[in-house]
This record gives sequence, C-alpha cells and structure tokens, in this order.
Amino acid sequence: MTVGEATRLEIASQPDVWQATLNELGTQQPQLTQQLAGYAATPFIVTGCGSTYYLSLATAATLRSVGVAAWALPGSELALYEQTHLPHNFTLLAMSRSGTTSETLWAVKRYREEHPDGHVVAVTCVPNTPLVQAADVALIAPQAQEQSVAQTRSFTTMALLGQLLAGVLAGDPARLERLHKLPHALTSVMAEAGTLPETIGADLSLQRYFFLGSGALYGFACEAMLKTKEMTTSWAEAYHTLEFRHGPMSVVDSSSLVVGLISDSIAEAEIAVLKQMKGLGARTLALTETRGTYDWTGIDQVVELRSGVSEWERGALYLPVIQWIAFYRALAKELDPDNPHNLTAVITL
Amino acid sequence: MTVGEATRLEIASQPDVWQATLNELGTQQPQLTQQLAGYAATPFIVTGCGSTYYLSLATAATLRSVGVAAWALPGSELALYEQTHLPHNFTLLAMSRSGTTSETLWAVKRYREEHPDGHVVAVTCVPNTPLVQAADVALIAPQAQEQSVAQTRSFTTMALLGQLLAGVLAGDPARLERLHKLPHALTSVMAEAGTLPETIGADLSLQRYFFLGSGALYGFACEAMLKTKEMTTSWAEAYHTLEFRHGPMSVVDSSSLVVGLISDSIAEAEIAVLKQMKGLGARTLALTETRGTYDWTGIDQVVELRSGVSEWERGALYLPVIQWIAFYRALAKELDPDNPHNLTAVITL
Repeated sequence: MTVGEATRLEIASQPDVWQATLNELGTQQPQLTQQLAGYAATPFIVTGCGSTYYLSLATAATLRSVGVAAWALPGSELALYEQTHLPHNFTLLAMSRSGTTSETLWAVKRYREEHPDGHVVAVTCVPNTPLVQAADVALIAPQAQEQSVAQTRSFTTMALLGQLLAGVLAGDPARLERLHKLPHALTSVMAEAGTLPETIGADLSLQRYFFLGSGALYGFACEAMLKTKEMTTSWAEAYHTLEFRHGPMSVVDSSSLVVGLISDSIAEAEIAVLKQMKGLGARTLALTETRGTYDWTGIDQVVELRSGVSEWERGALYLPVIQWIAFYRALAKELDPDNPHNLTAVITL
Repeated sequence: MTVGEATRLEIASQPDVWQATLNELGTQQPQLTQQLAGYAATPFIVTGCGSTYYLSLATAATLRSVGVAAWALPGSELALYEQTHLPHNFTLLAMSRSGTTSETLWAVKRYREEHPDGHVVAVTCVPNTPLVQAADVALIAPQAQEQSVAQTRSFTTMALLGQLLAGVLAGDPARLERLHKLPHALTSVMAEAGTLPETIGADLSLQRYFFLGSGALYGFACEAMLKTKEMTTSWAEAYHTLEFRHGPMSVVDSSSLVVGLISDSIAEAEIAVLKQMKGLGARTLALTETRGTYDWTGIDQVVELRSGVSEWERGALYLPVIQWIAFYRALAKELDPDNPHNLTAVITL
C-alpha cells in the first residue's frame, strides 16, 4: 500500500462518512430524544483521552452554549484522582474512538460506583465495546472507524455526534437539519482550498505551527495541534486565540505558521491577533465562515467555510484543511502518516 | 545592569517574599475569614490571562480539592463571549499581577452588569488598581511586584494567596500554618538542586521541553511551559501527565527533556510515564515530595521537595527549579531573561 494511504482515504472520505452518519442519526433522533429526556437538568462532565479529551473540551463548550452546564476533564484525572470535587449529581459523557481506552473506562467504572443513580452517555465509533455496554445511552458512528493511528474522520464524525447530543438536550431538533449542510460544505471548502494544503504542507521552512481558537473552537484548535504533531513530529501548539498574546507569542518568528480558527462571536479580535503575528514575521492562515466585512489585509491566506451554520455547529469543518496540511507535511518529511512516531492506535495502561 | 539581573534577583528572592507575604496574610486572615463567610456555598469561576490563567487552572483544581466548586476560563472567553453558559450564581475570582489586564477587567465589568448581587474576589500584586477597586475582597502581595516581563515570584506568591483563599473557604485556618513551611523548603530545595538548573539550562542539545502535571500541578506545569517559552524562545509544552501518552509523546526524542511534577495521588502512574519517555530517548527530571518507596530506576534526575505539605498546597515549590533552568538556558542562548522576545509586561487590547 502507498505510504499514508489509509490516512489519505480516511481524510478524503469525510463528506461521505458525515452524510451517512447524519442520515443514520436522523432515524435515531426520536429514540435519543426519549432516552435523553431530563438529562439537560443535570450538569455534564465530559471526558476522553488525547483527541477525545480535546473533543470533550469542544463538546463541553458547545453544551454550555445551549444552556447545559458542562465541563471537560481528562479521563486520567477523573479516573485516578481521589480529591477532586465534582458536582453532587452529574451525567458522565464519555468519548472514545475505540470504546476501550483504559482511563475512560476506569472513569466510567468509578462514576458507576460513586453515582449508582447517575447516567453515562457514550460517544464512540465501535458498537459492542465495554464503553457501549457500560453506557445508558450510546451515540455510535461505525462508518467513521479507522485503520490509522491518528484520528481524522473519527474525530470529526464524533464531533457531529456531540452536536446531535447538544441539539437533543437543547430541545432543538432543527440542529440535525442544519448539520446536514456540513458534508456539502466540506466538499466545497476542499475545492476552494485547492492546492493550498499541499503547498503549505510541503513548505518545510515553516517549522512552528500555532493553532488558535476560542469558545468551542479551542478544542478543535487543540486537535489541529495534535494532528500536526502526530503525523509530522513538528513543533505544534494550540491556544485560546487571545491567550496567545499573553506570553506564548514570544516564540513567533518567520518560521512560524499561525492558523486562526475564526469564530463569529469575536472575529474582529481574532483577526487582530493574526495581524499582530504577521507583524512579528509569521505566516498566517485564517479559516472563517465568510470574509464578511472584516479587513483581512496582511493575512496571507483566508479560507471561507460558507457552512451556513453557527460557530457552535461547524467546528468539524475547520479540521480537514489542517488534516491535509499535516498529511502533506508528513510526506514532505518522508514520514508515514498512517504510523506516527512512538504511537499505537489504542493507549492502554 | 547585568543581563537578566532583575529576573535573577526576583527568582532568588522567593523565600523572603513568600515569608513576608505569609506573615502579612497571618494578620489579615481573621478579616478575610469574615469577608469570605458564605462564599464557599457558591461556585467559583476563576479567571486570568497568560500566567494568571494557568494560575486559575491550578487554583480552581485546588478549590475543588477542598470541596468548593470551581472552574477556570481565560479572561478573554469570559469577557467577550456572549453564549457561554455559566452557573446562575457564581463568584468571580480574578487573578492579575498588575491589576490592569484588559480582558480580566472586562470580565469583571461584565460580571458586575450581569450579576449585580454577586461577588468579585481579586488576587493581585498591586494595591489601588482598577481590579482592586472593583473587587469585594482583595488578596494582595505587594512584595511580589516585579520589574521583569516574565512572571516568576509574582506567580508563586499569588499561588500562595490562592492557597490562603482555599484555606479560608474550607474553614481550615491551619492551611496558612502549613504554608509557612514553604519558604524554608524552597531554600533547601535550591541547595539540594545545586548546579543542576545551570547544567540542564546550559545543555543546548536539549531542544524540546515537556512539563507534565496532574490535578492542581497541571496549572503549574503550564506555567513552567510558559516560563521556558518566554525566557528562552524554546519549544516547550505542558500536559496532564497521563494525557502525554495519548498522542503528544509522538515528538519525544533524544533532544527532549521531560519534566514530571510528581503528585502524591497518582505518583506511580506518573513515574511510569517518565520511564516510558526515557525509553523513547528523552532525558527525564522528576520533582517529587520524597523518593518514597517508588522505583526511580531510569529517571535521570530526581529532586526532592520535602515540603511536609500536600500536593494541593505545595505547587509553588515546583517552579523555582524550572525558573532557574529557563534563566540559565536564556543566558546560554545569549538572550536577556528580563526582556523576552516579542513581549511587554502588561498586555492590553
């Protein structure tokens, strides 16, 4: 098989896999609405490990945006720490690609022991796993399963499951309808981006990657960081967009690429950060719903997403451009995207 | 003035500044206890920018450990985002070295508008600032003020203010007594560390720094990352200790230093992570309360803190060794620790 072929196919398949998953969710939505009735009244703790911890950060922010109290913690912290004080009653939302991640399963087990009347909601790609068996409600995207170590379509598709969950909890069934815009939007985005991901990825003069996002997009920025790191063994970091100015930008120089996942809420302030980084010598790339009326002068590249949905609903759409950049960078560095350095697909303790 | 002289003096002054601050707090404790009566019943949102956001992460975890609901968010997210759902009633704990950080002040202003009956607690180094004037209760460490851009003693001393706050909210006045062990412990730690910080800092074959911490120590690991970044413009990252295995370790190689801020709660699992990184070629440094009965075979350096207090109380003690490593690394790279690249002391929008 060609080097990186599994990852290439998995990244490319996202419009189709998203569409199939959304169709499937459409048939499940009535049952999920019934199963999740009353859940919104209790706070959620959202957990995962690695990519799914970053998905937890994004999902918790999204849940808060629809009025459901939610906070994210890594599986290891929930599973192993004795002293951490959590709400008396909370629902555990556990996210795991494989459904077998050890710390996540331990967190579920501990939760069951300490909250015998509580609820566990699972988001995963694999049916009939220990996680699914331990959950009261499971949202599963089997079409998103992957051969590759680094999560790509599994992450974005599980993000859609999180979106559906937010819609059901918020009593907003139209959210699923809106999500149906995303597969087509992704196809359009990649057509618009053209050779941009390959050009940026092949530019090995770029040695420091910074991904900036606010609100739910912070979690997606973290995942962009991890994908770049895993596939390319490069210096890659993620920050809340305005936080970047409070110290981290000290390492920005002409070898830096600063990627802004632009929100709707504070787009102007985020664009200002990118411009400041351009002034420090960085190359800048903005992913934004539309150019709108903002002044983009000085931003090197702007990719419009044109999803037609809010920043809280379109997070998955920011990632494929970055996944492709990482993919092409891996090839340019003669690395195999399918087999990241030091890693295996499922980390178990 | 010698290059880096302000930073050198500020790092070195920490035992004295801590002691003076703890003495001062002793006289204020009765009044603080009165002022903060009833505050523990309401959740806290803890906020700051840059270093003080990392301090917010540590302080929120510490508050949870004593039974006070608390979560951290960056000032920019609190100040600028409209949709984020927060608890109906919460106390805002705002942390700022200067008391003038724009996003933090905006977060306070917005909180006042939306929660006219709410409370603001300030932790800062400067009296008579807009932040102090806007707060109901202010914990101030004027002795910790700094000339340097990068926070060193201000961070650790504000961490002690956060500790006192946790003690008062928990109805545990003995916490302050225990904190009095820290200044002497710091002097001992630096004596034990000897030339270690200079030796590590001067080793420019180390090019990737990773700081790992769990619980409240995650926030301190983040600050260790930022200090290394600001002073030395180096590749530096921070993770929850067990999270590091879920992807980020893909960039570990023989140019890497992995520093473990070892907890009491999950020390064995944390030491296992360091050993795994050693197996991947990294140099490893552990900062731990005591060697205890753990097997440290394969860990390159172990520094014992011997504070006599819990992991939730001794966080500040982990930082000076790392501050010195960063200081000496800056000198080895012919950088000025007093004047980090791209930065100024107070970031205002």
